[in-house]
Amino acid sequence: MERATVGGMDQRVSLVTLVVTDLAATRRFYVDGLGWEPLLEAPGEVLMVQVGQHLVLSLWDEAHAVEEIGPVVRGGTAPLTLAHSVGAPAAVDAVLEDARRAGAASVRDGVRREWGGYSGYFTDPDGFLWEVAHAPGPLGELVVP
Amino acid sequence: MERATVGGMDQRVSLVTLVVTDLAATRRFYVDGLGWEPLLEAPGEVLMVQVGQHLVLSLWDEAHAVEEIGPVVRGGTAPLTLAHSVGAPAAVDAVLEDARRAGAASVRDGVRREWGGYSGYFTDPDGFLWEVAHAPGPLGELVVP
Repeated sequence: MERATVGGMDQRVSLVTLVVTDLAATRRFYVDGLGWEPLLEAPGEVLMVQVGQHLVLSLWDEAHAVEEIGPVVRGGTAPLTLAHSVGAPAAVDAVLEDARRAGAASVRDGVRREWGGYSGYFTDPDGFLWEVAHAPGPLGELVVP
Repeated sequence: MERATVGGMDQRVSLVTLVVTDLAATRRFYVDGLGWEPLLEAPGEVLMVQVGQHLVLSLWDEAHAVEEIGPVVRGGTAPLTLAHSVGAPAAVDAVLEDARRAGAASVRDGVRREWGGYSGYFTDPDGFLWEVAHAPGPLGELVVP
């Protein structure tokens, strides 16, 4: 079938890299706090965690990152969120509580959303927003393994 | 085995949400340009694309996003990158060319990296950085399906 597109690049995300200001604090939150297992570490430089079948979360020390990508904007909320989807509203509350105990900088309790789901947010040590969400229907079925 | 962690939250990312300033321009780049198939769309509000087995890239109109998450920082490079991993250096060059033809705001050609791989970058209409990378060894084997 002809498509009115340019095309070529597969629709895949392989790594999500967050540029962090204090990798030790980041490690305390994700590894010591949430209990996530490092996949690969270069102390002071990068910490990688597998977060999906072919997906890695990379936490990259800012001093090293700016050498490769140039300066980044700081001073408020970065224009992105990562979502962690779960199978029921009660699981949202439980994960938000896990994040609170792990030392999340802030936690916004779960609320019903107009799109039909239930979600809340927490922030990591650099203020990156994680949404913890239950989405009923096909979207939830797709993203919850 | 006992772990000195708090723990609880599975190490999974379900959605990566980028807050975009002009959803129509974003759509022209990802859908018309790269040829990516929308999974779910609410015109003027959000465009979602499946980018992994249980993973969705969500492109969220800023006016709607700020209602839920509050104001976000603009004015330079956001402190994150998304990576698209491929199986060979030549595939990096090919994808960067795809991005260029799709209208990427800027493209930085592939170079050899000190970590042993080869990668370049392009930016989407909001300046979000995508790295196109070939990583030899276990990391590359994990992230390239």
